[in-house]
Amino acid sequence: MTEQNDTVAAGAARRGASRRAFVSASAGLAGGLVAGRAAAASLADVPPRGPGDPLGARSERSQHVALARIPEAGPGIRNVDWSQAINSKTPLDKLVGTITPSDLHYERSHSGVPDLDPAQHRLLVHGSVKKPLVFSVADLERMPSVSRVAFIECTGNGWENWNSADPTLTVQNTHGLVSTNEWTGVPLSFLIGLVGVDPSAHWMLAEGGDGAGVDRSIPLTDEILQEAFVAYGQNGEPLRPAHGYPMRLILPGLEGNLHIKWLRRLQFGDRPWMTRWETARYTQLRPDGKATQFQLRMEANSVITSPSGMMEIKPGAHRITGLAWSGHGKVAKVEVSTDGARSWTEAELSGPALPKAQTRFQIAWEWDGQPTKIVSRATDQRGNVQPDRRSFIAATGTNALFHCNAQQTWNVDKAGRVTNVLDQGGDACRRHRGRIGCPGSG
Amino acid sequence: MTEQNDTVAAGAARRGASRRAFVSASAGLAGGLVAGRAAAASLADVPPRGPGDPLGARSERSQHVALARIPEAGPGIRNVDWSQAINSKTPLDKLVGTITPSDLHYERSHSGVPDLDPAQHRLLVHGSVKKPLVFSVADLERMPSVSRVAFIECTGNGWENWNSADPTLTVQNTHGLVSTNEWTGVPLSFLIGLVGVDPSAHWMLAEGGDGAGVDRSIPLTDEILQEAFVAYGQNGEPLRPAHGYPMRLILPGLEGNLHIKWLRRLQFGDRPWMTRWETARYTQLRPDGKATQFQLRMEANSVITSPSGMMEIKPGAHRITGLAWSGHGKVAKVEVSTDGARSWTEAELSGPALPKAQTRFQIAWEWDGQPTKIVSRATDQRGNVQPDRRSFIAATGTNALFHCNAQQTWNVDKAGRVTNVLDQGGDACRRHRGRIGCPGSG
Repeated sequence: MTEQNDTVAAGAARRGASRRAFVSASAGLAGGLVAGRAAAASLADVPPRGPGDPLGARSERSQHVALARIPEAGPGIRNVDWSQAINSKTPLDKLVGTITPSDLHYERSHSGVPDLDPAQHRLLVHGSVKKPLVFSVADLERMPSVSRVAFIECTGNGWENWNSADPTLTVQNTHGLVSTNEWTGVPLSFLIGLVGVDPSAHWMLAEGGDGAGVDRSIPLTDEILQEAFVAYGQNGEPLRPAHGYPMRLILPGLEGNLHIKWLRRLQFGDRPWMTRWETARYTQLRPDGKATQFQLRMEANSVITSPSGMMEIKPGAHRITGLAWSGHGKVAKVEVSTDGARSWTEAELSGPALPKAQTRFQIAWEWDGQPTKIVSRATDQRGNVQPDRRSFIAATGTNALFHCNAQQTWNVDKAGRVTNVLDQGGDACRRHRGRIGCPGSG
Repeated sequence: MTEQNDTVAAGAARRGASRRAFVSASAGLAGGLVAGRAAAASLADVPPRGPGDPLGARSERSQHVALARIPEAGPGIRNVDWSQAINSKTPLDKLVGTITPSDLHYERSHSGVPDLDPAQHRLLVHGSVKKPLVFSVADLERMPSVSRVAFIECTGNGWENWNSADPTLTVQNTHGLVSTNEWTGVPLSFLIGLVGVDPSAHWMLAEGGDGAGVDRSIPLTDEILQEAFVAYGQNGEPLRPAHGYPMRLILPGLEGNLHIKWLRRLQFGDRPWMTRWETARYTQLRPDGKATQFQLRMEANSVITSPSGMMEIKPGAHRITGLAWSGHGKVAKVEVSTDGARSWTEAELSGPALPKAQTRFQIAWEWDGQPTKIVSRATDQRGNVQPDRRSFIAATGTNALFHCNAQQTWNVDKAGRVTNVLDQGGDACRRHRGRIGCPGSG
């Protein structure tokens, strides 16, 4: 704990210095930021004012803003028809701040998107309990609630780059299976108290109400008992159907498929149920051919969202920005390299780093027009450092598919074209085309 | 500062105790929360699973969820056609957590909602500066940014109850002119550095790009220099036109009309400009007939959102919940009375209290079926306590219209009908029908 606090305190001091350095560096680039301006700017440079349209029941997006998720039917199977999509990816390249708009939160669904009737829907809580109970949405709304900003990440996020780097990928392709919302709901511990769970029950089965009925065994660790909740709200409003309306399990920091959507059942027991989702599906194949089960936590991770894949930049002043997150807690620092991971600069965090939530980072950068590579790496409050690709493959092997948190490298060529590359060549690993439809539930 | 820190520390200790008491009280009501359930609940009580619709580019709301703002053309002029609306109010009664969905953020517009072309729009920064400059949206996006969760509140929020309490009002009617979003943009201090503002310039004029061209003089206090920013993002995405796309000034804690939308001009000088918006419009009439100018800060405030006006409740277990906020900083505590302000219970805060952001509060309540009144009052980190109506009128007089932060009382009658009432009768003040179209810009 002391070590952890030291890390946090050191992080705060570093962040102060880092912010000052960043602002100073940006100001130093002021010439670049305002290049080409007239010496005496005046109102003549600003378009005239004019009337607007009537107000309305909802504020729609500007006609000048296009925001959409993209469909995927498996690793590398992109641009499919929506009727074949098994997931939809968040447009990280077009977002700012840390909150993901509710309608752009990524999703991973195994049997489409049911829109359940909240008047009919029920949650059964049973198993090793004194008194099994069923709860309606209205019941949950009358119970104590918690609101918390947390990321959810598909365990398959990053799978696109396991063995090779397609240069046409955007950051939406490579990292679009992670999002951050404010979730609101009832603490799991409160429901446990109501039904009287047997002290010998160290596992919980959570089952979804879609056709696939995704069900996962969840160990009742202290962390989960303290942090898990059954959500009915998302960014201030009821959950949307794609995200589990009317109820969803939230397990901050753990892989997306555990955040069971359309939650209909919690069962308590003394051992895992070994459902097909944790035997055939969400296991991690090791170098020796055996599989690791219950690798539940999402690791320290980050990605530069701008400039990123398929963007084009010009020489001069730039802001490099991106998102960092860790299932272990807060992001302590993010470093950015603009010379292909040879040297690193600590980035500024542009808002408070909330535990198990995405954090926005940024640095000022003057691009000299020479080809280079830009990379980010996150360190979390427990000292976990996001690995480079070589270390990651060395530790994980090449049979795996999930929990990829290797550093993402973007190449910048002489023409300013930004493309997806591997940070070190030669680490090709086997392509997992046979495992279509695998990663996390979102 | 020490006093303030003490308040915060004491608040943290109190909140721990308060959370325990709340959970304990809720658990005590468990019988009520699950009344009428079968003794042996089983899967037979839960609807069967079924397939869903295809995934999509955006997650739409459930067909079972209806969320909309409501139009207003002035104090008491409700349910007008949208073409006549001067503002739209947020459905606080239907929201959860603390973030307001972007499309439901309240708005106050003086000349409709322009959808400006970001490729054409410019921000002129001039006046007492070394070098006047114009900035495009793309320029701002290359500068250092900050992301911050903050409330914006129309200075007229609460105006419905100045002299009498219409019993048909919902909390959307009484308090729907306040919302909370995560805003992202460039610190004002950075822009000031770029243009080289003269040290003698202690005021800034901000002008909007709509037909009305709302312009306000803003004092360059240390607080504003540290906290103000020019936003281009809202809840992770570009601002929506109703909220100032493509640029808006954000001044956390200050009245909504200062958060100039469609921002086109910042001018620096040594005195206020005395625009019509700060002489004829946004001034506060005192009991002696003189007016107070530049009453900029929104005070400690809170309101119970459930149960609230026009709802109906049944005897038994309830969760009383609502929102609290203060332009001075963090909410330190919220107290709730269920006996018409005779006795008070400290509420639990269901997430971190961020400075100058709305905070969700809740208490467990068992209604015995007898008529009563429920009320909330907020205290902020500087010790400001939300006044009861009598104290508020005594201090403010009855000529005023803005900055009403009096406690909101909801009456519960024998049938369980919840209605808007004044906490003390006899304080009728003059109705301000003559000042149509007055309150804050949102």
